[in-house]
Amino acid sequence: MARIITISRQFGSGGRTIGKEVAERLRIPCYDSEILEKVVEASGFSRDYVEERGEYLSGKSSFFQAFVDRDYNGHSIQDDIFMIQQEVILDLAKSPCVFVGRCADYILRDRNDCLKVFIHADMESRARRIVEQYGEKSDSPMKRLKDKDSRRAAYYQFYTDMKWGDVRNYHIALDSGSLGIHKCVDILENLWKTF
Amino acid sequence: MARIITISRQFGSGGRTIGKEVAERLRIPCYDSEILEKVVEASGFSRDYVEERGEYLSGKSSFFQAFVDRDYNGHSIQDDIFMIQQEVILDLAKSPCVFVGRCADYILRDRNDCLKVFIHADMESRARRIVEQYGEKSDSPMKRLKDKDSRRAAYYQFYTDMKWGDVRNYHIALDSGSLGIHKCVDILENLWKTF
Repeated sequence: MARIITISRQFGSGGRTIGKEVAERLRIPCYDSEILEKVVEASGFSRDYVEERGEYLSGKSSFFQAFVDRDYNGHSIQDDIFMIQQEVILDLAKSPCVFVGRCADYILRDRNDCLKVFIHADMESRARRIVEQYGEKSDSPMKRLKDKDSRRAAYYQFYTDMKWGDVRNYHIALDSGSLGIHKCVDILENLWKTF
Repeated sequence: MARIITISRQFGSGGRTIGKEVAERLRIPCYDSEILEKVVEASGFSRDYVEERGEYLSGKSSFFQAFVDRDYNGHSIQDDIFMIQQEVILDLAKSPCVFVGRCADYILRDRNDCLKVFIHADMESRARRIVEQYGEKSDSPMKRLKDKDSRRAAYYQFYTDMKWGDVRNYHIALDSGSLGIHKCVDILENLWKTF
């Protein structure tokens, strides 16, 4: 039986909302910003810094930049944050819970009681959602989506050596734009009980 | 409400079995080899020839070969088979049914009552399955899986200009190796009723 659900998601696909609702129905915790708070506490870095560096590579050519920003041991501050985040996730995963993002699927790859989920949606649904959730910004919604997705993908690939969003890495992938948030929650709730 | 289910699948993932079982539970037809028979009838080509050319590009560098085997109008026999197959699928899709493979998801792309599914599994489960289903062959199971997958992918990409198995093209993608065939059938049966 599954004890952990990991949700990877495209920006604006509603993956976090799905994670929160599934967790609520199953009466287990859902960890998203809670991980951030614990990493802030353990690392001493600011919340904004950890939020930005805990799931995204920075800069335009971010994948290559990640190889450059390193000391003479080939070590970066981003690596420290990844390591602390890994410890936090391994510790929280001792009890049943839902994780949203932060490479939890990779960090828990050796556990066979972990249901790995990917949530995606078409650009139009996601653009509509981020404007509703986060309001209008100076960038166009499409530009924000592309930037967030590509930096998340680069971060994931850099630390896991796997391709983010590759269907083969997940037990189930759902299009929340067509199926709707509640239908996704129903499917995952049922699946959890019999996985 | 969904009227059509299209199932794309990795070779050996049990996608055809899942399609047949879902169709049986929903009491609607499942079309797989039936499409083949209709194309054989309409085209006059042999069953083996249509089976091979109706879902796979041929040869090692098959994607490029597909541009070469053409008459002075840029037309190939494979194109004829694709066109006949398309007509057969559009005709059958007038009533609720399940399609397995044959680019049905692409052919029915303009319909919004079509639930698009992708079934995949790890190499080990698929190798075990093809040995059970099709017996031992001279090629190793891994070699057969890779060959079939790459030729299916090349065929799909050639005729649809989309990437086969890209998570964004499907409403739901399921790992039948981890979830099991029956769990996949349950999920699709429930989803059909509320999509």
